[in-house]
Amino acid sequence: MRELLRVPAGERPDVGRMDAAAIPAGPRDKAAGRAATAAMAPRLASLQERLYAAGTAGDRRRLLLVLQGMDTSGKGGTVKHVMGPLNPAGCRVKAFKAPTPEEREHSFLWRIRKALPQPGEIGIFDRSHYEDVLIGRVRGLAPRSELARRYTRINRFEESLAQEGVTVIKVFLHISYEEQRERLLARLDSPDKHWKFDPGDIEERGAWPAYQEAYERVLERCSTDAAPWFIVPADRKWYRDWAVSRLLLEHLEDMDPQYPRADFDVEECRSRLLAT
Amino acid sequence: MRELLRVPAGERPDVGRMDAAAIPAGPRDKAAGRAATAAMAPRLASLQERLYAAGTAGDRRRLLLVLQGMDTSGKGGTVKHVMGPLNPAGCRVKAFKAPTPEEREHSFLWRIRKALPQPGEIGIFDRSHYEDVLIGRVRGLAPRSELARRYTRINRFEESLAQEGVTVIKVFLHISYEEQRERLLARLDSPDKHWKFDPGDIEERGAWPAYQEAYERVLERCSTDAAPWFIVPADRKWYRDWAVSRLLLEHLEDMDPQYPRADFDVEECRSRLLAT
Repeated sequence: MRELLRVPAGERPDVGRMDAAAIPAGPRDKAAGRAATAAMAPRLASLQERLYAAGTAGDRRRLLLVLQGMDTSGKGGTVKHVMGPLNPAGCRVKAFKAPTPEEREHSFLWRIRKALPQPGEIGIFDRSHYEDVLIGRVRGLAPRSELARRYTRINRFEESLAQEGVTVIKVFLHISYEEQRERLLARLDSPDKHWKFDPGDIEERGAWPAYQEAYERVLERCSTDAAPWFIVPADRKWYRDWAVSRLLLEHLEDMDPQYPRADFDVEECRSRLLAT
Repeated sequence: MRELLRVPAGERPDVGRMDAAAIPAGPRDKAAGRAATAAMAPRLASLQERLYAAGTAGDRRRLLLVLQGMDTSGKGGTVKHVMGPLNPAGCRVKAFKAPTPEEREHSFLWRIRKALPQPGEIGIFDRSHYEDVLIGRVRGLAPRSELARRYTRINRFEESLAQEGVTVIKVFLHISYEEQRERLLARLDSPDKHWKFDPGDIEERGAWPAYQEAYERVLERCSTDAAPWFIVPADRKWYRDWAVSRLLLEHLEDMDPQYPRADFDVEECRSRLLAT
């Protein structure tokens, strides 16, 4: 699964030509997809508990899932569904908005470092440092030379994360132009969803081709062995949830975290306890 | 429900005489309890979304659930179950451990303030500032005069939270001495749970009467109108989960958060969108 969705290092995918409703592998319809996602839950919960337990005994490893995608691509929904089976105490979810004045005074990686998962934790970023090379490029907030430097800094940063034991999974939730229109319209149609809508979303949509190009550059420049990018077709929500859960599962299985052995005398403790 | 579990201001409950397996109200057995808890999920999810939505439009209100209880009383399990129906993006879970050297250099409320929920969020504390008047008292880490000052500071702090729009729900998960023994033994019996066990837990258990007394004082001194304490019988996990979910639900219903009205022209946006 992983290899199928992974962007090969240095390759520039033609995102506009990729089918956002594709089902490259796995369950073929919604019912099967939801069932397959639910079936992964116990294994995900167990692996997360092991990771957390290992973290309490000195294992420095952790996992960071980075979610990027256009407005309405389902970053928030993915967080909710993927985290469903997990113990929230071991998760660190962070949604990055426009930087605050304080954040603006620091390097663009400053706020990212502060939000990283600690050993044993699973971190999920809803948007990330990649905004600084996406909106930064599209809106001309940074000159091209600065963007080039940022790609390099990002790659170096993620390489250092990998060396510190952070498994980084970066997911581009790929939706189509038409699907975005439907989802934005749905927000307008329901008063309970008006709060999710911002008229500025329509202007952002106007920059769709520029964003697609900015994403293609990110995928080309920043899919590394240390921290690869994965493209998940996200027009179908059930497929998106299955695919991201599956990516998480495969990476956790690779990490294969282990419950730590007792560093105390179990029998002696049992006797002492029974005497109380 | 709320009034049944609430500790009246200034009253000192005799915790040792309260049945930790009691079912003071609500479902009478495990199957009914689990079903009733599950039935609350959609309403909890909806109220949380409203609270979050209102927060994006300037509503400063938020909710803080504080969980305290002896080792194995189920604070972690409660976090997991109660948060199940909620969107993790709107939750802020914080487990407080022994203070770090940095935390020790500040007032005991410093680290608490840093972890408070932001407007629109639901915060859950697994342990809290109350440790500083519990273990602080039992282990003699602070003189009695300092403890008296802390109760006052805590009440003032929580009063200020209430004024800022924070609904504070403080829950004492009450388990029996016998149930704790069973749960600690269960941790010893399963190698997968050894990581949760610390031989120091047996010493802490030795201070059971002192802890009960420390809890009684906390409940007497710090159950205020601004931030009342609730005692939840927690020997039965299904009842504990139901009761805490129910407390959360009742408070959220009282808060009655509303989706904000659109501050843009919906029809105009729809036309512009349809033209894209």
